[in-house]
Amino acid sequence: MKKEKDAKGHSDLVADWERLFRVFIRPEGRASRATLIKYMDPILYGLNDFLKTHVGITEAISLKELSKGFTDTTINDHPEKKLADVITCLINEIAPYAVNVASPYFVGHMTSAIPFFMVHLKTIIAALNQNVVKLETSKVLSVVEKQVVAKIHRMIYNQKESFYREHVQNTDTTLGVFVEGGTTANLTAMWAARNAKFPPKDGFSGIESEGVAAAYHAYDVDRCVILVSRRGHYSLRKAGGVLGIGNKNVIALDTDKKNRIDLSCLKRTIDTLKREIPKTCILAIVGIAGATETGTVDPLEKLARICAENNTHFHVDAAWGGPTLFSQKYKHLLKGIHLADSVTIDGHKQFYMPMSCGMLYLKDPKTLDVIAYHANYVNRQGSVDLGIKTLSGSREANSLILDCALKIMGKKGYALLIDHGIETAAAFAKEIKRRKLFELVTPPVLNILTYRICPPAIRKKLETADIAEQREINKTLNTVNRRLQRIQREAGVSFVSRTTLLQDNNPDDAIVVLRSVIMNPMTTIAILNDILDEQEKIFTEQLKGLLE
Amino acid sequence: MKKEKDAKGHSDLVADWERLFRVFIRPEGRASRATLIKYMDPILYGLNDFLKTHVGITEAISLKELSKGFTDTTINDHPEKKLADVITCLINEIAPYAVNVASPYFVGHMTSAIPFFMVHLKTIIAALNQNVVKLETSKVLSVVEKQVVAKIHRMIYNQKESFYREHVQNTDTTLGVFVEGGTTANLTAMWAARNAKFPPKDGFSGIESEGVAAAYHAYDVDRCVILVSRRGHYSLRKAGGVLGIGNKNVIALDTDKKNRIDLSCLKRTIDTLKREIPKTCILAIVGIAGATETGTVDPLEKLARICAENNTHFHVDAAWGGPTLFSQKYKHLLKGIHLADSVTIDGHKQFYMPMSCGMLYLKDPKTLDVIAYHANYVNRQGSVDLGIKTLSGSREANSLILDCALKIMGKKGYALLIDHGIETAAAFAKEIKRRKLFELVTPPVLNILTYRICPPAIRKKLETADIAEQREINKTLNTVNRRLQRIQREAGVSFVSRTTLLQDNNPDDAIVVLRSVIMNPMTTIAILNDILDEQEKIFTEQLKGLLE
Repeated sequence: MKKEKDAKGHSDLVADWERLFRVFIRPEGRASRATLIKYMDPILYGLNDFLKTHVGITEAISLKELSKGFTDTTINDHPEKKLADVITCLINEIAPYAVNVASPYFVGHMTSAIPFFMVHLKTIIAALNQNVVKLETSKVLSVVEKQVVAKIHRMIYNQKESFYREHVQNTDTTLGVFVEGGTTANLTAMWAARNAKFPPKDGFSGIESEGVAAAYHAYDVDRCVILVSRRGHYSLRKAGGVLGIGNKNVIALDTDKKNRIDLSCLKRTIDTLKREIPKTCILAIVGIAGATETGTVDPLEKLARICAENNTHFHVDAAWGGPTLFSQKYKHLLKGIHLADSVTIDGHKQFYMPMSCGMLYLKDPKTLDVIAYHANYVNRQGSVDLGIKTLSGSREANSLILDCALKIMGKKGYALLIDHGIETAAAFAKEIKRRKLFELVTPPVLNILTYRICPPAIRKKLETADIAEQREINKTLNTVNRRLQRIQREAGVSFVSRTTLLQDNNPDDAIVVLRSVIMNPMTTIAILNDILDEQEKIFTEQLKGLLE
Repeated sequence: MKKEKDAKGHSDLVADWERLFRVFIRPEGRASRATLIKYMDPILYGLNDFLKTHVGITEAISLKELSKGFTDTTINDHPEKKLADVITCLINEIAPYAVNVASPYFVGHMTSAIPFFMVHLKTIIAALNQNVVKLETSKVLSVVEKQVVAKIHRMIYNQKESFYREHVQNTDTTLGVFVEGGTTANLTAMWAARNAKFPPKDGFSGIESEGVAAAYHAYDVDRCVILVSRRGHYSLRKAGGVLGIGNKNVIALDTDKKNRIDLSCLKRTIDTLKREIPKTCILAIVGIAGATETGTVDPLEKLARICAENNTHFHVDAAWGGPTLFSQKYKHLLKGIHLADSVTIDGHKQFYMPMSCGMLYLKDPKTLDVIAYHANYVNRQGSVDLGIKTLSGSREANSLILDCALKIMGKKGYALLIDHGIETAAAFAKEIKRRKLFELVTPPVLNILTYRICPPAIRKKLETADIAEQREINKTLNTVNRRLQRIQREAGVSFVSRTTLLQDNNPDDAIVVLRSVIMNPMTTIAILNDILDEQEKIFTEQLKGLLE
């Protein structure tokens, strides 16, 4: 667009009413209309072109160098740029330094390529700009949300048709809520569990009203705990902190050899709590369906039974693994999930929705009644406003994206993605085991695995070494793997992440592992072999010396 | 698009790998590329066309009727629709039943028209799909966020250039955070205030770690309170509940005649708390800069002094009013905001960003250290990951939208919007006063006002009536105004909202008022006159009898 002055002598880059009107009313002339549509080309393809030419996570420029270009903290009085120039600038100056999460070589995190139609759907949400906090700013979108929530609820809980007929559009009950992400979903579940344990009674108006200290006093309780394995997401600790339970009372239990919660440790812990600290209340036990670090799944059926025996809220964090239920072939891996009182699933993970979208599902449609809030100007008592039972207030209508995506993909479309991830991860594990230089640390159950560089000679040494020697060796291996991951990341071709896992649940035996998440359908075993080749090369050329 | 079978005999609507690949790889052929761009036309204009033909909030169809069409809770095995059909369906079947928040006649809520470029910007965010929880999934976007946060911090706090040079890209300090919305921002502020009051000390590891009950015990405290006027947003009560303080300890103080916090009531309350309940801790005092119901602003400077005297966190909820600081003409209305320890501002309100975007700003860049969380796989200690100090985990890069919007609008662009809102609201108030049928209940300070139908004869009666009679009359007036609002909403031409305010802070004297929020630059005094005309007509034709 030109920057000359217009008929009235104004530059285009002056803030005046004429310009202001122009940005609020979409230009309607045929030419301007075409221009506005044309801007979508660089957005859909210009950004995409970058994503094809730059793979991997970093450019040559360091974060420190990069940030030097972003230190001006003044805001111009008048406009600096028009939309066309902003888009050009984003393509030339921002996108090249963004992370190419869509690359099939980017297998380090739970953020990946998304189907292109998701971008169109997000655009629709922005164009409608509804606010689902209340009916008066969303109307049909509130109805759509209730419907799609019921669809996913059915996938998890598979209740009778009559149950869904009763609840799908019932304004008094809640089968689930859309939230910002898995963290908020987990927090909401623990919030509801907390409030349900300390309801109002004679002379006490409930924990939500009077607070944690008064509640403990009223119910003669000393502390509350939440039990979850070491593999639990850190958002659970955060929930404990936020909710006033204390994050140290979110107790990380040992795992078995397969990185699932150790059930004997769980039972022992429950017994100890009951016997030795009788005033402790078990607020919830959390099962994991797709651990962030290892992708492993807890024995959900058995956990459900233990929760029932102990009259405790059973929450399942399926932020990652939830959509596995679409796969006829692999849904058995989540067996027992329907017994959970609440289930977290993320939309921006294996539903392949754009950032950010989380969900919480409830077995009992009355569960969230204990967290309801009302106000005179919004969420009035008895209204159908969806904001009544959510942590957040105003929020966008992401449910419409999921509803459309389900129609475009079908169950089987999602199942293909799930199957690809699980089967490619299995093939990757096989390849890791085949290569002598690597040690598979946690085999994949779903589509996540961890491994590390550990040459045969070192592995042999580890087998016969005593504990002190083992620790020394692992310390060196940790350095090697940490450096390996960084060198590969900086090379910019591919990206695996790293984390730290305990051996035999011993905090003194932490080992650094490389972590791969296979969710991109373009990530093939050939690409994963490339990644291993590169790692072998980096090790041989740059790191081998550390182990000699 | 055709639905015939393709060369391999597959229907287009079958979930198979070929189709899956097609939705993950943007089609690159010239024709398909053009098609994909063309879809943006109905999205940008098809939805917009609806917004021009249908004004107001409801269609003839009731919610009950509407929801009948959304009760199927099964998900198809195979795809049901292609993107083109989904878009058509949204335009024909969803948009007509959405709410036209962009209409200049929609003056009831804080959701409004947004500049058209915002839709393009949101599309960019979706296309990049970065996750700002950590650097490895966002890189430059984390840097952009820190920069734009510093820009807005400067607008609020106006520190020295050297301060911003030190902190703008400092990976250890935090000038502000992007969050989901005002509710999360207020919650985060109260969370930080809570944790700062109960830090670790000998034998106590801090309230975040040990919980509220242990903290009260360690510090010999019986309860914490948060003080705010009756005009405080309900998210503050919710924060009290969530954080384990108890929402009844978020104490709603009386307001003065101008709907600002009554300072003598505040001082009295503080004195009483100190004298009579010595073990009470005042966690925070909250000032409001743009009350949800009345748009009024608390005396921020005086509140700051009281907070300093009482060593209490001073939070300002400027979710609504924050951008008033852009206006040279009206920024004095927020005088003293720079004294706040923390300030909430919403992006999706007067920054005219798409749903949902909130922000929290901190005077002291170390304030959020007390809510930091780390994990091995994300937000590592010492990293620059932005997720360390936010309630949420994964989240989209909304900061880029604000940064671009500031460049496109300039300070003065936003100032024009602010000035228009304030001045149009003032003109509207004048018109309400001029019309005999109406009573202006709360005159506008910013761009929100409340009024009600109250014919001269009734007003006269109210003046001489005793309290019992007044209540009877107000009860009838409440019915009239409640019905008026509903009839007007159902007619579908325009929309004002309603709320309930107390007269003289007396819970027995609640009056129902109509509420207007003037934020759409297309909302002129002529349109507001139309709205009043319609209300007069509805009253005269349908409701007058109730007052006779």
